[in-house]
Amino acid sequence: MSGKLFIVGIGPGNPDQTTPEALAAIADAHVFFGYGPYLDRLTLRPDQRRVASDNREELARARDALHTAASGERVCVVSGGDPGVFAMAAAVLEALEAGPPAWREVDLQIVPGLTAMLAVAARVGAPLGHDFCAISLSDNLKPWTVIESRLRAVAGAGLVIALYNPISKARPHQLGTAFAILREVLPWSTPVIFGRAAGRPDEAITIMSLAEADPKVADMATCVIIGSAETRIIEREGLPPLVYSPRSTAGPA
Amino acid sequence: MSGKLFIVGIGPGNPDQTTPEALAAIADAHVFFGYGPYLDRLTLRPDQRRVASDNREELARARDALHTAASGERVCVVSGGDPGVFAMAAAVLEALEAGPPAWREVDLQIVPGLTAMLAVAARVGAPLGHDFCAISLSDNLKPWTVIESRLRAVAGAGLVIALYNPISKARPHQLGTAFAILREVLPWSTPVIFGRAAGRPDEAITIMSLAEADPKVADMATCVIIGSAETRIIEREGLPPLVYSPRSTAGPA
Repeated sequence: MSGKLFIVGIGPGNPDQTTPEALAAIADAHVFFGYGPYLDRLTLRPDQRRVASDNREELARARDALHTAASGERVCVVSGGDPGVFAMAAAVLEALEAGPPAWREVDLQIVPGLTAMLAVAARVGAPLGHDFCAISLSDNLKPWTVIESRLRAVAGAGLVIALYNPISKARPHQLGTAFAILREVLPWSTPVIFGRAAGRPDEAITIMSLAEADPKVADMATCVIIGSAETRIIEREGLPPLVYSPRSTAGPA
Repeated sequence: MSGKLFIVGIGPGNPDQTTPEALAAIADAHVFFGYGPYLDRLTLRPDQRRVASDNREELARARDALHTAASGERVCVVSGGDPGVFAMAAAVLEALEAGPPAWREVDLQIVPGLTAMLAVAARVGAPLGHDFCAISLSDNLKPWTVIESRLRAVAGAGLVIALYNPISKARPHQLGTAFAILREVLPWSTPVIFGRAAGRPDEAITIMSLAEADPKVADMATCVIIGSAETRIIEREGLPPLVYSPRSTAGPA
């Protein structure tokens, strides 16, 4: 017997940004795996069971979820934001590929969600209005040298950059180094947006120039968006400024 | 008197992927501006009025919406997917910056939505599971040489690529040229996903290798995702294959 495995994104934090599709999947599952703070955002019934784990145990959580689904249960793996963006979908598929053949027979459904950079961008304007990229600044899973090369390549090519996992207790210095690299490539006036907990009651959005950008403004719940050389700020009297990246460019490449 | 201007993303097409926040904004507005097929997806009340326009008239539509909101109306500009990703939010801000001072006083709210690449990715696995970028292949607003340079830069840096606006009647050859460029940089076995109308009744998802990738599979409603050299395919008996990009990399940069 083979059960069901949902991998669901519940969005960045505002309950009104969780899709009906995600809520339907949650209603249809009985065992929930995820990082505790994400599971805390669900309203579960008495017949629904939660298995919380630390956010550094993604692969073990993925294996547990696959094992439970393969034994016939209806299982839901919960991610904040979108499960396919630096979250659980890739971890589950890594575990599935390396696991027993029975795991490949599990009925798998991935339910997308609003990822943080879209919610942060909407709060300040349209900073992702032209070509952009999303890069995780965590060097737990890739060498720091790769991250540095990618930052130089994308900034040099004119893409706006959204940084996920910008900082943590175990990685306090990476974001400052990233800003230093980007100052070599981009104008120091380039807008930098620190979007913390977008859409949640404790939301904090800060806009600084790349020259002033202070890594201490970011924490684990922050998505940092760094404009391109063409990203603009519109000042408004008595209202927060708007940041946008024009749809058109004349170059440079 | 100054009205309200919502810029709302209604997601890629499945109504269950439209957020409650977007539905609330739609319920709160009286005049709707957008590309006809997006407005057709709304269920409006008799007191709500629609102003449809062609998808090549984004800046004129943005000006009309700002003018109407500044005159005191409650206005909604509708985008498919997310309004901040190759859609109306940047067009409205361009118009706002260049327009009369009164437009800056308009109460503006941007409501994010699920963008196509997330919906397509979820249908096949987790192809955006590590660093990735989104590039519009339209050379209406930027020189083709810039697009070519960006493709080489991001593929060389190891990012997965989501291509928006891959093809149209006026631009039939660009996607084939893009594949040719990427074949110079990436292994020919790299997975390419053509995600057409994800989540809609006429959805069509096709997975090919970069060697086989055929531009004719794409149309205007398609988001094309090209893996990195590390993107993998998991075959399953009697089920569609899964595509994912592992979270970790050893390089190259």
